[in-house]
Amino acid sequence: MSTPRRPPIGRDTKLCMSLAGRPGNFGSRFHNHLYEALGLDYVYKAFTTRDLPAAIGGIRALGIRGCAISMPFKEACIPLLDGLAPSAAAIDSVNTIVNDDGLLTGHNTDYAAIAPLLRQYGVPAETPFVARGSGGMGKAVVSALRDAGFRDGTVVARNEAAGRRLAEGCGYRWQAEVTSAPLLVNITPIGMEGGPESRDLAFPEELIEAADYIFDVVHLPPETPLIRRAREMDKVVITGAEVAVLQALEQFRLYTGVTPSPAQVEAAAAFARG
Amino acid sequence: MSTPRRPPIGRDTKLCMSLAGRPGNFGSRFHNHLYEALGLDYVYKAFTTRDLPAAIGGIRALGIRGCAISMPFKEACIPLLDGLAPSAAAIDSVNTIVNDDGLLTGHNTDYAAIAPLLRQYGVPAETPFVARGSGGMGKAVVSALRDAGFRDGTVVARNEAAGRRLAEGCGYRWQAEVTSAPLLVNITPIGMEGGPESRDLAFPEELIEAADYIFDVVHLPPETPLIRRAREMDKVVITGAEVAVLQALEQFRLYTGVTPSPAQVEAAAAFARG
Repeated sequence: MSTPRRPPIGRDTKLCMSLAGRPGNFGSRFHNHLYEALGLDYVYKAFTTRDLPAAIGGIRALGIRGCAISMPFKEACIPLLDGLAPSAAAIDSVNTIVNDDGLLTGHNTDYAAIAPLLRQYGVPAETPFVARGSGGMGKAVVSALRDAGFRDGTVVARNEAAGRRLAEGCGYRWQAEVTSAPLLVNITPIGMEGGPESRDLAFPEELIEAADYIFDVVHLPPETPLIRRAREMDKVVITGAEVAVLQALEQFRLYTGVTPSPAQVEAAAAFARG
Repeated sequence: MSTPRRPPIGRDTKLCMSLAGRPGNFGSRFHNHLYEALGLDYVYKAFTTRDLPAAIGGIRALGIRGCAISMPFKEACIPLLDGLAPSAAAIDSVNTIVNDDGLLTGHNTDYAAIAPLLRQYGVPAETPFVARGSGGMGKAVVSALRDAGFRDGTVVARNEAAGRRLAEGCGYRWQAEVTSAPLLVNITPIGMEGGPESRDLAFPEELIEAADYIFDVVHLPPETPLIRRAREMDKVVITGAEVAVLQALEQFRLYTGVTPSPAQVEAAAAFARG
């Protein structure tokens, strides 16, 4: 099979980018790999900034086609945009900006990725869940559970104010400590590569053992301690790596209008992780 | 000889760019070719904008390393910068912005390219000249002639106000029509590819015949009608293509701190023209 190549970068090349407090390389590698594979005249680069309004103003003024938004900018960017798509309006949090000729619309592809994954792995909406975490990603995941019809939920967070706000806003309970449930969801940085708790399990062994489904939103490493333990116990697992790929794919579609094949997506994801 | 390659584009890649009313591809091709040849973690892309202050604010906020400035932004950008290097201060015109951790300095590498070329081709400073044109590039070239010690000069421009301002500001004469001189300099778009006068000579045949040196600042095509005619008459010629490469090389040095070999520059220039 012949491989198309991206044309030389020039005036007609569309730039997509990301803004994060601590930029990673997953997005740059994933998107650039697909541009090459599909021969699209796009290029992608990660940025950080100390001046969010000027950065967003630059996106508009330079005609930058799209921008992924990470911590700590997901809510702060909203007043700087021209509108919100339903995915972002549902949770007042933006992880993706699409620029249509100077008109900036906020989307949330993290939120949009959750329901398809729950369906794909056959998790019934009747399943009671305990979700640990109340940060920006927590809002996307817990809101998506609510909108997917999950009625019996508990949000666990050490920060009672943030935990209660998220839980009660979605019609769920807050509690300070983890308890047993058939679906356990980790939305904290526990198990994250390079973090202080990279070797820790987000839930104790006995709760993992008692559960049916384990969903870890941490995407680096692709196999966290929680995911590895759950696989050993033959649980159904959904990984943060899958969320990362699905949300990046949705960004790719929003920016380019092109849907790559599953094999192309898998190759780009493997390259991005590598 | 092994060829280094630019690393995959990511968070550590430095972006350089250009801003022009009508962006070309010369800069993107020249700089990206050198980044590849030297294995530098940079990428270059041409942009336009309808909002110069927001575009410059974006350069600062996103940490974009450098930006070439073309018409119609060369003077308008000055109040948006933090300072001017001597090359830009000499003519109050900026064609290059260097961003040092948020501090934006304006340079003029067009101005800086003129004197080295006159030296390289052995044009004595005593040579009387007639220069045709009074636009932004005219200011760079005529000021560089003055600063290189050329004392006997005439600026020809249909626009008397602009022509007189430029000529008299540099201690030269203005006149409305071209006349004979040993050094003829074209700084108008006459002979430019795609323009309405692409087949015209900027000076009549008899003036070319009577001159010793012909300097055409038009860089596309690399061999303009004026340059071709002057070569046929065995005149010493300096081309706009040489100016374009020398000024782009100086931008490259300012952005990267690296000086490529003459062979690398020639390969990048050939690719950029192609």
